[in-house]
Amino acid sequence: MLAAQCVADAANRLATHIHHTPLVSSATLNQWLGHHILFKLECQQKVGAFKSRGALNALLVAREAGQHFDEVVAYSSGNHGQAVAWASRILNTRATIFLPAGTSSIKAAAARAYGAEVIITTDRAAAELQTQDRCAAGALFVPPFDHDAVIAGQGTACLEALAYEDPIDAVFATCGGGGLLSGTWLACQLRSPRTQVFGAEPKRANDAARSHRAGKIIAYSGSAPATLADGARTLSVSARTFEYLRELEEIFEVEEQAIAYWTQWLAHLLKVSIEPTAAVAMAGACQWLARQSQKRIVMVIVSGGNLSPETWRNCWADDNLCTPPDQWLADRL
Amino acid sequence: MLAAQCVADAANRLATHIHHTPLVSSATLNQWLGHHILFKLECQQKVGAFKSRGALNALLVAREAGQHFDEVVAYSSGNHGQAVAWASRILNTRATIFLPAGTSSIKAAAARAYGAEVIITTDRAAAELQTQDRCAAGALFVPPFDHDAVIAGQGTACLEALAYEDPIDAVFATCGGGGLLSGTWLACQLRSPRTQVFGAEPKRANDAARSHRAGKIIAYSGSAPATLADGARTLSVSARTFEYLRELEEIFEVEEQAIAYWTQWLAHLLKVSIEPTAAVAMAGACQWLARQSQKRIVMVIVSGGNLSPETWRNCWADDNLCTPPDQWLADRL
Repeated sequence: MLAAQCVADAANRLATHIHHTPLVSSATLNQWLGHHILFKLECQQKVGAFKSRGALNALLVAREAGQHFDEVVAYSSGNHGQAVAWASRILNTRATIFLPAGTSSIKAAAARAYGAEVIITTDRAAAELQTQDRCAAGALFVPPFDHDAVIAGQGTACLEALAYEDPIDAVFATCGGGGLLSGTWLACQLRSPRTQVFGAEPKRANDAARSHRAGKIIAYSGSAPATLADGARTLSVSARTFEYLRELEEIFEVEEQAIAYWTQWLAHLLKVSIEPTAAVAMAGACQWLARQSQKRIVMVIVSGGNLSPETWRNCWADDNLCTPPDQWLADRL
Repeated sequence: MLAAQCVADAANRLATHIHHTPLVSSATLNQWLGHHILFKLECQQKVGAFKSRGALNALLVAREAGQHFDEVVAYSSGNHGQAVAWASRILNTRATIFLPAGTSSIKAAAARAYGAEVIITTDRAAAELQTQDRCAAGALFVPPFDHDAVIAGQGTACLEALAYEDPIDAVFATCGGGGLLSGTWLACQLRSPRTQVFGAEPKRANDAARSHRAGKIIAYSGSAPATLADGARTLSVSARTFEYLRELEEIFEVEEQAIAYWTQWLAHLLKVSIEPTAAVAMAGACQWLARQSQKRIVMVIVSGGNLSPETWRNCWADDNLCTPPDQWLADRL
């Protein structure tokens, strides 16, 4: 495990390059829920997701360590590819991003807009193979979560938020590969050890929740589970991130309906773009809050805001705004 | 016409109640367009639209003038009703909002959440009649645009933005009844008379553009024109707002396709909720920028971010994100 100080070091390293994203709340929502919910808007971070923090920290750490590289490579079907493209441009380094066929064309276009070369591969295995070839030729590979500097970078989002005036009782983040949660846990150890850290995962893609309960990594085999929360479709956490994930209080499992519900309501209340993956954390927070007998201050990390038109349509297929959260939650107790 | 100083007075009056909303830009978009576009995010204002500025200013001005009222009334099918409900709560005054049948249930729910009584009427005419009855009984009526204090209040959005470090060449706002544009013009007169002010309107609801060209008010008769930009469906501007609107450089007319295009792209780039009505102003700005031979700094007022699920679905029916703005605009030249 990393020393928690690594997150503060990452924050210093990243300070001039990333946004100190807003920490906001909705008075209307707080009134409905009877708690104080803070939203850390990483959807308004560079590249529209917290991923820019980890990717850039990884490149800056490598450079500080004197590693020589004149190309950076990554593969991803999500926000990590864009983040590596963006971070490479800051270091004035060539980037190549391998995307498996079927990745949304928006994500490819975004990586290209940041100056990266995008190569579409037949599948994930082909992307991995080509990445290995490039690394053999001297390129630097930045993995999406199984990497110390990536974890430390992701933790800077929570670290910023912990400067909030009142003590935060609990922090909620969605679990994909576990990088964000690992860094978040470290940030709390460093600045606010009393703050409880919770994960949340779609029930349909609950490998981390099951791993947490079992005390060992349980992985999906084969293809990624189908869920509205495409950022949480990872087949498995890594041995590295599981060291942190096992320290979490709990990982909540969230129904698809709750993901769609909170995607709509958070967009409606906060007026920001919210990925369904980010709404998972809010749904998890509600499960915890339902058990609390006193007023709590919680933070939900809104991990990203990159939606394809197809995802927009899927999220808004039903009219969830007709049922306000107090009523919706009461119906589910 | 009001003295431009009224806008600065309104800003002082509103300061502790409203958000100083962010003024943001997208480096990617600026690169594509070759200009610097600033977005004033009134979608993140109280009630999700600039309307809270004018409504609250009207109530505060009435109170300062010693007017006695223990009820506030308004009718609206848009954001103005929510704004009056919100503003009345600040003054601890009862509010009644008349909404014509067919108004989105979200807007009714929002007005109720701010503590107002909501009365659904058969149509607009019935709403007007009932409002008159209440006023006869001593209630204060707040019109959506045809009112000096409302105009001054709306101008405070632009006034805030004019504190930007560099001189802004042009400001763009969508024209509904003309209250926002009237206040915006006043704000520029006060702080930056060199800044040009432009309106934008859906081509399908172009009464203000035609009025501007004709030099006299041309109104739609009968039902409101159908356009994706529901905030611009006003049948006519008023004699009061036309005094300001005639001073504008130009009112651009925007195709429905351009409204949908910019609704998607601004949400994608800025990660905020954008009403199609707000995208009209961006489409207008693009028409002006296409004529410019040197790099310009322009501000687009993003008027609001309240979308019903139906509007979300209409906006995301097609995949506009596949065509980046540089290519899309070049195709239209």
